[in-house]
Amino acid sequence: MAEKRTEIASLGEFGLIDHLTRHNEVRNASTLLSIGDDGAVIEPFGKQLVVTTDMLVEGVHFDLMYMSLKHLGYKSVIVNLSDIYAMNAEPSQITVSIAISNRFSVEALDELYEGINLACDRYGVDLIGGDTTTSQKGLIISITAIGEVEENKFVTRSGAQENDLICVTGDLGAAYMGLLLLEREKKLYLENPNVKPDLENQTYILERFMKPEARRQTIAWLKEKKILPTAMIDISDGLSSEMLHICKQSEMGCLIYEEKLPIHDDTRAIAEKFGIAATTAALNGGEDYELLFTISANEYEKVKECELFKIIGHITTADKGKYFLTNGNNKIELIAQGWNPIKN
Amino acid sequence: MAEKRTEIASLGEFGLIDHLTRHNEVRNASTLLSIGDDGAVIEPFGKQLVVTTDMLVEGVHFDLMYMSLKHLGYKSVIVNLSDIYAMNAEPSQITVSIAISNRFSVEALDELYEGINLACDRYGVDLIGGDTTTSQKGLIISITAIGEVEENKFVTRSGAQENDLICVTGDLGAAYMGLLLLEREKKLYLENPNVKPDLENQTYILERFMKPEARRQTIAWLKEKKILPTAMIDISDGLSSEMLHICKQSEMGCLIYEEKLPIHDDTRAIAEKFGIAATTAALNGGEDYELLFTISANEYEKVKECELFKIIGHITTADKGKYFLTNGNNKIELIAQGWNPIKN
Repeated sequence: MAEKRTEIASLGEFGLIDHLTRHNEVRNASTLLSIGDDGAVIEPFGKQLVVTTDMLVEGVHFDLMYMSLKHLGYKSVIVNLSDIYAMNAEPSQITVSIAISNRFSVEALDELYEGINLACDRYGVDLIGGDTTTSQKGLIISITAIGEVEENKFVTRSGAQENDLICVTGDLGAAYMGLLLLEREKKLYLENPNVKPDLENQTYILERFMKPEARRQTIAWLKEKKILPTAMIDISDGLSSEMLHICKQSEMGCLIYEEKLPIHDDTRAIAEKFGIAATTAALNGGEDYELLFTISANEYEKVKECELFKIIGHITTADKGKYFLTNGNNKIELIAQGWNPIKN
Repeated sequence: MAEKRTEIASLGEFGLIDHLTRHNEVRNASTLLSIGDDGAVIEPFGKQLVVTTDMLVEGVHFDLMYMSLKHLGYKSVIVNLSDIYAMNAEPSQITVSIAISNRFSVEALDELYEGINLACDRYGVDLIGGDTTTSQKGLIISITAIGEVEENKFVTRSGAQENDLICVTGDLGAAYMGLLLLEREKKLYLENPNVKPDLENQTYILERFMKPEARRQTIAWLKEKKILPTAMIDISDGLSSEMLHICKQSEMGCLIYEEKLPIHDDTRAIAEKFGIAATTAALNGGEDYELLFTISANEYEKVKECELFKIIGHITTADKGKYFLTNGNNKIELIAQGWNPIKN
């Protein structure tokens, strides 16, 4: 928190919006009219548009005890951009609505918007509108993202075919281990506020949780190589859950190999410390925001050397089931144990 | 509330989304892919798109003590469609995100979506996506609406010119009086739950508050008559506040005549009962969702007989100020005293 505290009421609603968007700039030719009217106007010049939306609720999706507002703002945008990339589109605009209780100052919101603006800047996205209002409790952020895709090049979850290669970007399970580490330190802090948090220099896994990135390079690489995935989804609830979505919507089965799962060394080390199998974190941890996609086996030669993603298995017919082959050669059924905030 | 109570947790997040969207249909050719993937895909066929978003928070924007969930769902959509029409566009798609505490059952959400679907159906809008999550307190609804407009026919708040006619659809102040009536009965009920609410058969003003409509007919009429407003805004915070927005963004002044204000007889009657000037309700009441727009004085002959809207004044140069001429011939400065949830 910044030292100065300006009450939001001192600016009023319109003053607050003016203040928060004072550095707002337009980056996309498709953004004709941005913030400041009843609506924004966009013109996608013959492209198709992808629209996605996500709502983040304090105490459900984030905890401000260990998440800075700047990180939160950044991550809130990223989770939406990740959905746009998962449709094989390029994000171009977002709207951001927030509801805030009176415990937040203008300076706190400035921090949040710093993160939002940083994400917009890095990903070339325009902030074109939003709403700012009062909440009865905590902070709620609702973002809608719009992206552009060439005609009929959007990729759904439903196109996977038998023998397609199953690919995943980056690595898995790190965000979950980052969360566990933060939760552990929070618990210790609540028991004794004099204890200094020991985050064990786990920069990698902490950043994976607090400041995830969306996989734009992979989308650009696939485009450059003229490879159109047959199905794609982003990993927010864990690999298992997302793989099952693709199988269900494609009416297919799958076989994933434990030995192929991309898991960072830091993730393995901290998982061992916590007494958790790194594979479990990878399968069910969630919040990785990696892309899970399927491509025709004919593309194998083109993709085998690519460092942006790894082949972790293949698609089977539905009657073969949805399986995971462990390093011990046990075939176990994939089940979704991912995060489910609705059950909280 | 329905009698049966199904816990939301019994469906799970994906089950709940499937359940709530099971009757969802596509009404617009521009909706290529709807709910069920990381994003929806739209293709506006050479038109420009208008995007707007609004967040409604229980206890701030609505009170479920006197607002049914069906009305709330309907109104939540309407307030967004109203913004789309206020840009001179035709709404085509919406996304709906909700955060709910565990006091809501599946049946309660069904009621909410009944209202949402009814509004979509009446206005020919597709529900193409959303998010469903948990809140720590109460119900939060965040809606983003997308609309289509012919190339460069969108209307902002900033184009009003000297001598333009100031027009307003429908009538003003009724929603505010409806709210006051509901608040009065709520207070009496809280003091003595055995008292039966007496809403005095005020169907008109109650419906204006609980079930507002967006002014699509006016937009269609103007299009048919080939009249392009120079500036337009929808009235959510009250006529004064919205008129000042147009003046500020157009760098103009205005003169509005009290005698021209469209006020329904029921509004006048109930205002008198409450000891409030009906004019005050019209100027500052808010939630009317009427359209306030300016058109060139050259269009006077075309519009003077139109029953959809009334001319209430004219635009002046900025140095003439922003004034309201009362029936007693007093010229008073317009000030914004509209609703401001941020100040709560």
